[in-house]
Amino acid sequence: MYRSHNCGALRISDVNTSVTLSGWVQKSRDLGGMTFVDLRDRYGITQLVFNMETQEDLCLLARKLGREFVIKVEGIVRERSSKNANRATGDIEIEVSKLDVLNAAQVPPFTIEEDTDGGEDIRMKYRYLDLRRGPLQRNIMFRSKLAIETRKYLDSLSFVEVETPVLIKSTPEGARDFIVPSRMNPGQAYALPQSPQTFKQILMISGYDRYFQIVKCFRDEDLRADRQPEFTQIDCEMSFVTQEDILNTFEGLTKHLFKTLKGIELSDFPRMSYDDAMAQYGSDKPDLRFGMKFIDLNEMKGHDFPVFDNAEFVVGINAEGAADQFSNKDIKKLTEWMQRPQVGAKGLVYIKYGQDGSVKSSVGKFYSEEFLKGLLDAKGAKPGDMMLILCGETEKTRKQLNELRLEMGNRLGLIKEGDFKPLWVVDFPLLEWDEESERFHAMHHPFTSPKKEDVERMLNGDHETMKALRADAYDLVINGSEIGGGSIRIHDRDLQSRNFDLLGFTKTEAEEQFGFLLGAFEYGAPPHGGIAFGFDRLCAVLNNQSSIRDFIAFPKNNQGRDMMIDAPSRLDIQQLEDLALESTASAD
Amino acid sequence: MYRSHNCGALRISDVNTSVTLSGWVQKSRDLGGMTFVDLRDRYGITQLVFNMETQEDLCLLARKLGREFVIKVEGIVRERSSKNANRATGDIEIEVSKLDVLNAAQVPPFTIEEDTDGGEDIRMKYRYLDLRRGPLQRNIMFRSKLAIETRKYLDSLSFVEVETPVLIKSTPEGARDFIVPSRMNPGQAYALPQSPQTFKQILMISGYDRYFQIVKCFRDEDLRADRQPEFTQIDCEMSFVTQEDILNTFEGLTKHLFKTLKGIELSDFPRMSYDDAMAQYGSDKPDLRFGMKFIDLNEMKGHDFPVFDNAEFVVGINAEGAADQFSNKDIKKLTEWMQRPQVGAKGLVYIKYGQDGSVKSSVGKFYSEEFLKGLLDAKGAKPGDMMLILCGETEKTRKQLNELRLEMGNRLGLIKEGDFKPLWVVDFPLLEWDEESERFHAMHHPFTSPKKEDVERMLNGDHETMKALRADAYDLVINGSEIGGGSIRIHDRDLQSRNFDLLGFTKTEAEEQFGFLLGAFEYGAPPHGGIAFGFDRLCAVLNNQSSIRDFIAFPKNNQGRDMMIDAPSRLDIQQLEDLALESTASAD
Repeated sequence: MYRSHNCGALRISDVNTSVTLSGWVQKSRDLGGMTFVDLRDRYGITQLVFNMETQEDLCLLARKLGREFVIKVEGIVRERSSKNANRATGDIEIEVSKLDVLNAAQVPPFTIEEDTDGGEDIRMKYRYLDLRRGPLQRNIMFRSKLAIETRKYLDSLSFVEVETPVLIKSTPEGARDFIVPSRMNPGQAYALPQSPQTFKQILMISGYDRYFQIVKCFRDEDLRADRQPEFTQIDCEMSFVTQEDILNTFEGLTKHLFKTLKGIELSDFPRMSYDDAMAQYGSDKPDLRFGMKFIDLNEMKGHDFPVFDNAEFVVGINAEGAADQFSNKDIKKLTEWMQRPQVGAKGLVYIKYGQDGSVKSSVGKFYSEEFLKGLLDAKGAKPGDMMLILCGETEKTRKQLNELRLEMGNRLGLIKEGDFKPLWVVDFPLLEWDEESERFHAMHHPFTSPKKEDVERMLNGDHETMKALRADAYDLVINGSEIGGGSIRIHDRDLQSRNFDLLGFTKTEAEEQFGFLLGAFEYGAPPHGGIAFGFDRLCAVLNNQSSIRDFIAFPKNNQGRDMMIDAPSRLDIQQLEDLALESTASAD
Repeated sequence: MYRSHNCGALRISDVNTSVTLSGWVQKSRDLGGMTFVDLRDRYGITQLVFNMETQEDLCLLARKLGREFVIKVEGIVRERSSKNANRATGDIEIEVSKLDVLNAAQVPPFTIEEDTDGGEDIRMKYRYLDLRRGPLQRNIMFRSKLAIETRKYLDSLSFVEVETPVLIKSTPEGARDFIVPSRMNPGQAYALPQSPQTFKQILMISGYDRYFQIVKCFRDEDLRADRQPEFTQIDCEMSFVTQEDILNTFEGLTKHLFKTLKGIELSDFPRMSYDDAMAQYGSDKPDLRFGMKFIDLNEMKGHDFPVFDNAEFVVGINAEGAADQFSNKDIKKLTEWMQRPQVGAKGLVYIKYGQDGSVKSSVGKFYSEEFLKGLLDAKGAKPGDMMLILCGETEKTRKQLNELRLEMGNRLGLIKEGDFKPLWVVDFPLLEWDEESERFHAMHHPFTSPKKEDVERMLNGDHETMKALRADAYDLVINGSEIGGGSIRIHDRDLQSRNFDLLGFTKTEAEEQFGFLLGAFEYGAPPHGGIAFGFDRLCAVLNNQSSIRDFIAFPKNNQGRDMMIDAPSRLDIQQLEDLALESTASAD
């Protein structure tokens, strides 16, 4: 037997009990007559004490224990003379009578503490050591609990978890698939799913009524900082529902998760149309933890300031109380920040509303002080505020102002720790016109239904009509992060075919890739819809953290590599031959 | 709103309530004045009634409804005059006042009933229709419940569910990996995991203490009837445990699952050594639902019957009460059955013990009746029994007799419906010597620990010694199916290296493939061990069914094809180019 108790279990009530503990040496302090060892496991830390006077051999052995040695001890629980109130086991210590070293340890390449001295790369390589640290252990255990509570809630609503296949069919639409060559079918390949979308729709057609799955999905994308080639979704689908039913159900799930895991009672989620979100925040995932809504300033046109006069759109935000906080130098820096290619603004105009009621602006020579003051007052600015203004093509300018708004929110400290502001963004456009490829893309995905009132126009309308179609599509946004998204689906073969047409599929392509779904629509498909939550992101947002990587036990780096196991690895010639493939990569 | 209630919800207490229901038309009966429609969803069937006299238009519309049409109705709950006691909703029916056809349906290619008229292939192609049938719906929902109860139990024991990666590293050991070429790393590939083995060991080294995961695993094997290229495991690992701890924990899980899902209280599981299982049943997964243990009959050698005299081993089973049931013709057929290449016996000897005490045997001319009678009595046979005897090389003969035993158990009806006989098979050999390749194979896998008392012999013994090493490895067997298997793992670098040596890995190979694990052993690896349950098989065994395919929503056929979506599919030239690959398969 390796232990009678774990390292977080013993209390003052256990004093004088004989116990056996096993764990890792967190640290060891030699105080001459006494040696103290902190023994750690997942459950806590227990202090061991070795007495030089009464048990010299044991104490000498204990002095040789290095950090991260794995040991087993037997001893008696004693009350501590100097208690540690910060530790659950802080009232007691173990007077050790027997010590076994179960495994020695080399000195770790970085410290296994709350804050470590290890850099990103070395921690990725020695992930097994980084995973011992408190912050990561708490994250990984939080993730496990989040999954449990999700399942509990959905199960209580009669959702059935169904496993959908991982080896499926490649569909060139959307992001790039990972492919898996088939040995038994030379020249053919499976693909890994980007989502179980068609399978969950098939399950609705099969009458499963309420489906969910916490499921791995895969995208072979060039990785941005916070993307992973494999990621996890809470994937859901319901039959005989309207958008309203789905929003209510998953608002319920979200509230349940906040309540059980964070002790936070969320109020009902506001809803905002996509158009309003874009007009007021320049983003389809607005961070509502602070205000600073966009202010239409087109009235600044027609005053002989050519930059505004020639612009499609003039728009600003009012940074409350910021007038005194931003020197000319600060504003110059902010302007440069906005002019970086990542944002791409041409310039930045400010109007400062002095505490004394005076007005100062970078465009002061084009506008009278009276006009500017009137404008500030009309737009609700107060003395001490600073208005920041951009102009240009509408869509671009909104995106730039969104960046500025988020930056100002951060700089002005408007984001309160522990504040959560969820909302539903609804009424997304069905199709997006891509100028470059001259074709429509599905804004959500090709299976999304237009709103009921738009079906007729979609079936019979002209090209321009298509741009105005709205979908029963929705996103759940929390603190500026998209947590989930979904839609009511098409369940009619003709409408689905029309959508494939619009998206540029030939009949043959549509049939080859989605023939099974089109076929299934002909055998009694119910109205249905669903949603998918980004599980990794949800973990991070619930903990006010920005990196999903810290919530994944074995993440890949930005080159898609697992640095611990060193994957991917060189293809074996024999493996390629078995798959009827040849490599054209140059040898390294 | 599509429904106020589902099709399984309404009872006599709901009479006179206005309701809205949606679902599929199961069947429709036109009785002239009245038309009855059975409306089906996942939850049940509710009878709808349409009255020709009072609502002619509605009734005419109802008469046109085909099987599997999706409809929505509004109406009033009425008490039925002729009740159906076999149906939860059998006391009521809905007097329909409004009928909407939500989706029409073509006539399905097979009947959607408990028993269908559709063949295997057509049901695989139209899986979405087959999945509507009661037996499959119950299986898929059972699977969901089994997962829930598994998680509930393991969570209650502080197990943490951790997701391990799907894109990992190829390891040529064991079955063939599916590989996933990397676009970002040309010439390199990931592999899909055959199990999360090394990751769960890493998690133990990282201090997670108790890990589980219900997880997809992948094997690119030539498929036998009941294998799937992707399958699901309940994968578990524990730290600071002995074999005893693991057996107790997972015996507890198994009992919990039987109790909550089947209402069956299992007694404590017997344990049997691998050697005993092979000697008594010729199998490491004996079906204990009936006896018929192997009987050593080597004493039949030395009586001038050359076949036995020249055989290494003579062994038999006693089929109770079978003497009268098997004519000479039956025995001849049974002998032929044993001589098929799948079994490969050379012949079959019988001794019948007549009700009158007489003895009849196919080898009667070599043995005196007295000898044979004495033998029967000594071996516990009773009048009316029949002994069946094989001889030959020990291992082969045991395997053949195992086939015979199972066949006889079936023919004699010894297997009781609903009987469950679990057992632990323990003390497996560590290594298997493969004559053909002249090398050792790991009986369980390369990470399995020898028994403590065998460690020294393993590190320093000679070749012959290696064959006798025993492992702390165990299988859970129920009714002759291996449900789970596991072992205590090696947690010492030197012992693991020695094992890799014995298994024929070069130092470089071991380092390349498992360097991260060997490295991790140096930073404080705790003693640990685990088990994995075949989740698909567990579903089937709990339901006394033999096919795992019926418990997988979207299974592949024996060629590894998903016949519904038609995957795998032809590789696109562009996809191959992106992956720096070329196909050498001939075009079809």
